[in-house]
Amino acid sequence: MEYKRLGKSGLQLSILSFGSWLTFGKQVGDTTADDLMTVAYDNGVNFFDNAEIYSRGQSEIVMGEILKKKNWRRDSYVVSSKVFFGLGGDNLRPTQKGLSRKHVVEACEQSLQRMQLDYLDLFFCHRPDKQTPVEETVWTMHNLIQQGKILYWGTSEWSAPEIMEAHTVARQYSLIGPTMEQPQYNMLERIKVEEEYHHLYTVLGLGTTVWSPLASGVLSGKYNEGFVKETRLGIEGLEWLKDRTLAQANLERARKLTAFSKELGVSMPVLAIAWCLKNEHVSSVIMGASKTSQLQENFKALDAREKLTPEVMNKIELILQNKPKRSDF
Amino acid sequence: MEYKRLGKSGLQLSILSFGSWLTFGKQVGDTTADDLMTVAYDNGVNFFDNAEIYSRGQSEIVMGEILKKKNWRRDSYVVSSKVFFGLGGDNLRPTQKGLSRKHVVEACEQSLQRMQLDYLDLFFCHRPDKQTPVEETVWTMHNLIQQGKILYWGTSEWSAPEIMEAHTVARQYSLIGPTMEQPQYNMLERIKVEEEYHHLYTVLGLGTTVWSPLASGVLSGKYNEGFVKETRLGIEGLEWLKDRTLAQANLERARKLTAFSKELGVSMPVLAIAWCLKNEHVSSVIMGASKTSQLQENFKALDAREKLTPEVMNKIELILQNKPKRSDF
Amino acid sequence: MEYKRLGKSGLQLSILSFGSWLTFGKQVGDTTADDLMTVAYDNGVNFFDNAEIYSRGQSEIVMGEILKKKNWRRDSYVVSSKVFFGLGGDNLRPTQKGLSRKHVVEACEQSLQRMQLDYLDLFFCHRPDKQTPVEETVWTMHNLIQQGKILYWGTSEWSAPEIMEAHTVARQYSLIGPTMEQPQYNMLERIKVEEEYHHLYTVLGLGTTVWSPLASGVLSGKYNEGFVKETRLGIEGLEWLKDRTLAQANLERARKLTAFSKELGVSMPVLAIAWCLKNEHVSSVIMGASKTSQLQENFKALDAREKLTPEVMNKIELILQNKPKRSDF
Amino acid sequence: MEYKRLGKSGLQLSILSFGSWLTFGKQVGDTTADDLMTVAYDNGVNFFDNAEIYSRGQSEIVMGEILKKKNWRRDSYVVSSKVFFGLGGDNLRPTQKGLSRKHVVEACEQSLQRMQLDYLDLFFCHRPDKQTPVEETVWTMHNLIQQGKILYWGTSEWSAPEIMEAHTVARQYSLIGPTMEQPQYNMLERIKVEEEYHHLYTVLGLGTTVWSPLASGVLSGKYNEGFVKETRLGIEGLEWLKDRTLAQANLERARKLTAFSKELGVSMPVLAIAWCLKNEHVSSVIMGASKTSQLQENFKALDAREKLTPEVMNKIELILQNKPKRSDF
Repeated sequence: MEYKRLGKSGLQLSILSFGSWLTFGKQVGDTTADDLMTVAYDNGVNFFDNAEIYSRGQSEIVMGEILKKKNWRRDSYVVSSKVFFGLGGDNLRPTQKGLSRKHVVEACEQSLQRMQLDYLDLFFCHRPDKQTPVEETVWTMHNLIQQGKILYWGTSEWSAPEIMEAHTVARQYSLIGPTMEQPQYNMLERIKVEEEYHHLYTVLGLGTTVWSPLASGVLSGKYNEGFVKETRLGIEGLEWLKDRTLAQANLERARKLTAFSKELGVSMPVLAIAWCLKNEHVSSVIMGASKTSQLQENFKALDAREKLTPEVMNKIELILQNKPKRSDF
Repeated sequence: MEYKRLGKSGLQLSILSFGSWLTFGKQVGDTTADDLMTVAYDNGVNFFDNAEIYSRGQSEIVMGEILKKKNWRRDSYVVSSKVFFGLGGDNLRPTQKGLSRKHVVEACEQSLQRMQLDYLDLFFCHRPDKQTPVEETVWTMHNLIQQGKILYWGTSEWSAPEIMEAHTVARQYSLIGPTMEQPQYNMLERIKVEEEYHHLYTVLGLGTTVWSPLASGVLSGKYNEGFVKETRLGIEGLEWLKDRTLAQANLERARKLTAFSKELGVSMPVLAIAWCLKNEHVSSVIMGASKTSQLQENFKALDAREKLTPEVMNKIELILQNKPKRSDF
Repeated sequence: MEYKRLGKSGLQLSILSFGSWLTFGKQVGDTTADDLMTVAYDNGVNFFDNAEIYSRGQSEIVMGEILKKKNWRRDSYVVSSKVFFGLGGDNLRPTQKGLSRKHVVEACEQSLQRMQLDYLDLFFCHRPDKQTPVEETVWTMHNLIQQGKILYWGTSEWSAPEIMEAHTVARQYSLIGPTMEQPQYNMLERIKVEEEYHHLYTVLGLGTTVWSPLASGVLSGKYNEGFVKETRLGIEGLEWLKDRTLAQANLERARKLTAFSKELGVSMPVLAIAWCLKNEHVSSVIMGASKTSQLQENFKALDAREKLTPEVMNKIELILQNKPKRSDF
Repeated sequence: MEYKRLGKSGLQLSILSFGSWLTFGKQVGDTTADDLMTVAYDNGVNFFDNAEIYSRGQSEIVMGEILKKKNWRRDSYVVSSKVFFGLGGDNLRPTQKGLSRKHVVEACEQSLQRMQLDYLDLFFCHRPDKQTPVEETVWTMHNLIQQGKILYWGTSEWSAPEIMEAHTVARQYSLIGPTMEQPQYNMLERIKVEEEYHHLYTVLGLGTTVWSPLASGVLSGKYNEGFVKETRLGIEGLEWLKDRTLAQANLERARKLTAFSKELGVSMPVLAIAWCLKNEHVSSVIMGASKTSQLQENFKALDAREKLTPEVMNKIELILQNKPKRSDF
């Protein structure tokens, strides 16, 4: 495994990491969850990603139990959680979500309890909250760091100006600003990481922990023959993701890439992950496997990088035809 | 129920909330208190207002017991307390009241103990304290936020320049300033909310949790035929409120409004509360019922708002004849 | 009893307060100590002064036991301690005294343990420490306030420029500066309070808790006929105080004042204390009685103030002949 | 023993102190460790130096046990630890070392546990970490001070510009900067202390706790006849130190100095230590004996200083021929 600094911070994450979104407490049983974490850890993964909303808290409970049972040294890994959606559902009271000081403080406390941890390493604002002034959120995150309940804070799916504003506020009040952003990033979803955040890498030293390297499975090739119901994109509540991801142009790209991956002698998922790793602005690629065999396969992306020569990368661009204008990738 | 941000903050309060002033630990028994809180919570109220001085601490004890027994999720509601008067009475030593760091810190700790809570959501300076520099109070409130003992702090019955001064000090030292003010507000008492604080809504994003929407019962119509002894305004110690509220002009207004409310097809209390809700600068209207039937009635104000068309509002102004000069209401 | 703000702070102290210097754990037994504190408290005294060095920690232990036993409301009184001398003696290691962060933090913790308290209301730097930069001490005191271990901090026997420097540093780093100074002050020792600190009252709002209103007994008249061995000034280690206080000029003044007090119809100690109370820049006068009868007598100073008319004050000046040039007293 | 302020700070260290590097938990048994600490403490040593990496945590465990058993007053001594290397070894994950907030916070907690202490007096960044922005480390150290887990922080083997940068950051955000640096310093290794840090003593008031006054034994004379395997420089992992220290020029100097020490009537180690003490910018010289007899001998350096007259010092310079250009020593 290789490790890389999370942006300009001193925290080094494995470039391949493991997230429990859509799997723990839902798609996979607790034994499989344990197996997946073990395979990940044994392969050098040191970042386990989570969020309050993942399986409505259940994902944190499962991960916490595994961490407790495994008894790995606490300083050998990094755990995250995210605040914004609360535990989801239609009955949420308005104080049970968003980025108000109340919800951020309470969500942090609750995540710590569910995970049975004393502190979170990373704490993300899962979405921007137009209903809360950035000052309030930045102050609260800073305060949680001061209290030792979190070590670093970041954002997820914020726009570049929103991240910039958080830093402006932090600068103004001498507070600790966000260290990282967790955007979606894969061959089909490139604008944010390659274009929009471009300036932030230089100016802020922003780190990125990217999610969905396989574009929700489209880049695994499993939708090549059309939509399959019993898959992630069939999960209720993920329609927003499904529609965008399964656009015809994307399915077309997936089919061509699958053919190309065979030429290259790697599996389609490995190609997709390796391609993400090639971007120097990506700190860590979060994998979300539901079987240990998948996960084992994914690790081959580390070696597959060497096959991604400039020529190969160019060929991929020719297939994708979606390179952002200002991409320096 | 509708919810609204407390000023520019990210905290959303139910626009109708419930206060225990003059009732808990005094006018109503503990069972009734429980019933009232339950009706309120079940109707979507998420803000329960309290203060150290209410029934000299007893009100907090009663509310704390109910919250403990009900076991509602802590993140689903907002509890306040207020500091300034201490537990009241003539034997108070000077350190047992006011806004000195000593009293603010000790009052907070004592409220938490009486309510059996780990933190207060809102903590108000119940009155301005000319005997304490604003720096001392702002620093102390900021410090309580840092320590996680309170989430937001505010003022009650402060003048606009006093609130402004608190923000000036907060700005100077990079501290967290007051989020909200709790003024009296109703058809008979309009100057502060409509005129005096006008500038503060824009400049500071001030939120308001207003008390006494029924003008201590005058707007319920119960004094229409003259003063009734066995009512709130007959409570010893409330003479200051009684004299001002029961002025002839006000009783006259109440009588006319009662007649008008019948025309409109709503009860007088419902009209009075709905009228407060129409003011966009009001974050939440605190109701203080002593019977569940009253409280149930009050909730009709939510629907009654639609009857308050511009024409109806104008008619009300013609009855009131007390519109502040600069009111943008 | 009357109460007065400690300088510009919001903390109100009884204008007569009680200190345990030279008595608790030394001159008086624990029962007498209890009696003295009780008489003081019952007469409205709300400030009990102490220091780590008083009887080498024993004074704090005795006072702590009494406070625990009495069970007075914690918010009804103010307790102080002071840091600088450590527990005294010749065997002190250099880290066990002074105003380094190490000693200030450790001394605070130790005082809290000896007194069985959760926090000190006032914490004094008992002397200036030329061996520690003011930054270090101000930061540490501020930090103790943030941690809730002390409420206000101050100085004792610092020069005006030293106090000013502490405030300059506090201003520079946005920290909480010293609230009060504890200087010696009485008819024979006037320069500091009346002249040196003059500017600080206006500019900083400095409060003062003054010690030794009877000039170590000289103003009780007991040395009028010469030095008496079995008295405070005969205590080993107090030679510095003895020599200065028992100067011939002072004994002469004491004799004349005693005669004058008889004319006025008050005892000499009462006159001396009442005279201190007349100075508006004195926040509280610390009495240090070793008998309850003395203490009871001292309280007469409150009433005796009215006898100190401008004419009487002038006559006293004629006797003293030591009025500082710039005194506004 | 003499004591000296640690730079401009208010903390006074014994000018001779004791470090457990290479001895505790390794070269010497626990009984000897106890004896060494006891001899040191009884001779007035008040600073015991340690680090997470020393014997991979074992050195802290041994020292902690001794401190617990001895029950010396906690305020009578100063304990340090250092963070950077983690517990060493090849299996370290990247989060288990360096100066990221994660490692600094976790290392501090772990050192406290191994030593069974509530706080460290001194906490050093054992090396600069190019992989972590100085902001992150300074913020973290400041935060640990605020939380009461450490009292002072410093650096070890940082360059002058690196130390300066830490202070610049501290100034920018109003944080507490590093108080001291722990460099190697002895007759053979002079550049850093005498030349490089020169400006920092004046501008920052930097204190120094210097290690290896005997140049890893070369200045004890034991390598005069050539390298001896069963000695410190023979320890695996210390090759970096061995090669530099055992350079021919150094062995030559050692032989000449040994001869000169005999003329002077002191042992070679005593001469070497006394020479370090003569430098006014040295706050404390850390001795690292493995036998009580050595340690006892070392203390003679205190008296030996008087033999180091200007003439003698000049003769030593003639032997050393390594005086830095700008040394003011």
